[in-house]
Amino acid sequence: MEKVYLDYAATTYLDKRVLKEMSGYFTETFGNANSQHWFGREAEKAVVAARVKIAGLINCKPNEIYFTSGGTEADNWAVRGAAGAYGDSGRHIITTSVEHHAIYDTCRAMEKKGYEVTYLPVKSDGIVDLEALKKALRSDTVLVSIMYANNEIGTVMPLGEAVKITGEFAKANKRRIIFHTDCVQAAGALELDVQKLGVDLMSVSAHKFYGPKGIGFLYVKNGVRLEKLMTGGFQERKMRGGTTNVPLVVGMAKALELAVSEREKNNARLKKLRDYFVKRVTGEIDRVYVNGSMEQRLPSNANLSFEFIEGESILFSLDLNGIAASSGSACSSGSLDPSHVLLALGLRIELAHGSIRFSL
Amino acid sequence: MEKVYLDYAATTYLDKRVLKEMSGYFTETFGNANSQHWFGREAEKAVVAARVKIAGLINCKPNEIYFTSGGTEADNWAVRGAAGAYGDSGRHIITTSVEHHAIYDTCRAMEKKGYEVTYLPVKSDGIVDLEALKKALRSDTVLVSIMYANNEIGTVMPLGEAVKITGEFAKANKRRIIFHTDCVQAAGALELDVQKLGVDLMSVSAHKFYGPKGIGFLYVKNGVRLEKLMTGGFQERKMRGGTTNVPLVVGMAKALELAVSEREKNNARLKKLRDYFVKRVTGEIDRVYVNGSMEQRLPSNANLSFEFIEGESILFSLDLNGIAASSGSACSSGSLDPSHVLLALGLRIELAHGSIRFSL
Repeated sequence: MEKVYLDYAATTYLDKRVLKEMSGYFTETFGNANSQHWFGREAEKAVVAARVKIAGLINCKPNEIYFTSGGTEADNWAVRGAAGAYGDSGRHIITTSVEHHAIYDTCRAMEKKGYEVTYLPVKSDGIVDLEALKKALRSDTVLVSIMYANNEIGTVMPLGEAVKITGEFAKANKRRIIFHTDCVQAAGALELDVQKLGVDLMSVSAHKFYGPKGIGFLYVKNGVRLEKLMTGGFQERKMRGGTTNVPLVVGMAKALELAVSEREKNNARLKKLRDYFVKRVTGEIDRVYVNGSMEQRLPSNANLSFEFIEGESILFSLDLNGIAASSGSACSSGSLDPSHVLLALGLRIELAHGSIRFSL
Repeated sequence: MEKVYLDYAATTYLDKRVLKEMSGYFTETFGNANSQHWFGREAEKAVVAARVKIAGLINCKPNEIYFTSGGTEADNWAVRGAAGAYGDSGRHIITTSVEHHAIYDTCRAMEKKGYEVTYLPVKSDGIVDLEALKKALRSDTVLVSIMYANNEIGTVMPLGEAVKITGEFAKANKRRIIFHTDCVQAAGALELDVQKLGVDLMSVSAHKFYGPKGIGFLYVKNGVRLEKLMTGGFQERKMRGGTTNVPLVVGMAKALELAVSEREKNNARLKKLRDYFVKRVTGEIDRVYVNGSMEQRLPSNANLSFEFIEGESILFSLDLNGIAASSGSACSSGSLDPSHVLLALGLRIELAHGSIRFSL
């Protein structure tokens, strides 16, 4: 049976051009990038080139890129690291009620460590409520973390405005409030210019844009302090221990380069396909509803609620027909709880249970 | 010029048989192992098979293996996770003065979090002092972390005796003391039977035995509690968020399988080469000393002090002649401080500065 993969938000395959770029760094140029000899320098050259390339693509300095083992580590480091480093000046964190588990669960963990967390509501279209952000900012707020695009419903948040509101409050109150954004889901489809966005910290993971699994980075604006998440060797300017993953770093840089250069073409094609798909499904099946704004949305995402049917049984039946989709995110599969994202939109539990994410 | 790589302790190349095993999981079987569809199940099957294989090789249950992004993450998780989970019953940690930075620096970080750490001395041969361990154990000790083999001088620690001493003290004092061992450097050369060793936690990293960089595991004996290091998705039985790195997990299992099956043959060959190397260098150059026990030692390691010469200039000169070796570990390169390991052996600073690790 022909297989149709509609779960690209869970993970993508590795682009063959990316694999080709990586391939020399497994068995040939295999050195430890920190070693002081020819093998090490050859590896380091590749890492430096990758860092410079990525920095250029997101418009920052190369020394503002910190390689991590993926989006989850970058998110954990951002929240735990910034809250820890600035904990002396306050213990209040603001995030949204629709973040990925890597942020959401980490904020929950910070509550146990004595931090107070405000989970901003979203409107029924899945867009964060900026009025609520204005009200939530306090004299002890140290960190605001708002995702750029949602991983389940694909909605794109008004990041620029949120950064502006936070910055104005910080300035008026003579405070330093660190602004982090989880761009794991946004990275392939949206421009990630950190100067334009104005953020202090940004998380990215390669396997969401046809790069390898197990590699990501945290952008850390110069001057922003972070506690370390992983202590150890002197890698990443002594901020993150662990042998630099040369082939995966090279692969991530190549994948991001391709994503940026082909973004416009891909987005146009995906939007056309996605709109056609939504039109047919909502037009030909009764009681199907689209979750989240159709305007401020990733071009690849369609999240649909099917009334009176369990999501799991839809998935099962699609799977039997060779179609791969997802209920909620892959990261929370195995759970029978309805998605916290859909509940935050105000969906009834039954409808949330009957929701499927199709990602192209 | 022909290149000679004598820095296998820093990192190894990826075995071509391992790369072959991994190759299908980049662009073909690329699914998210947590996804509930055919692509996900195919990926999950590979992960389950790898987990079962590794469990068999270290004699534990598959659900006692937790995949991490490498040795540094496993070490950080072990120390931070166990100290955190058992912090209510005491805040004293015991480790050695010759641990890898991933343990050493993490213990230093725990001191800032209100834990007290005893760094056990080693004897002049680099073997941990067991009498000191007996004296160090206290009624508030929660964690003992002792490496199996040292990464700089290759000495093998009397792990069985250390576990026994700790266990007897714990029993007599009706306490639970978690025993962790960093086996990152030992994994290729020594048997890692967790039942025989009797440890609660064990860290392993694949790129030290011809596996891929960026993957490792923490063995966690059933019943041992750990605080999470990386919160997020429900992967690894909800204990470690982050998309499972299918190709790298598959590669690590294959690499460990090969290491175990070829261990005896490789060790014999390496020991012969290493002994020949040491004999020639110490016999033909004046004032060269071997650091650490020659009996309890990894067969691949030769750590030599050259009197009156700076290690960096030896390395530079070796490098010009195509020979790659290392002063201290790659993880601390860039530092001008002498190795904490060599100082712990009682070496004068000048001799520590003139020391080179050759690893075959």
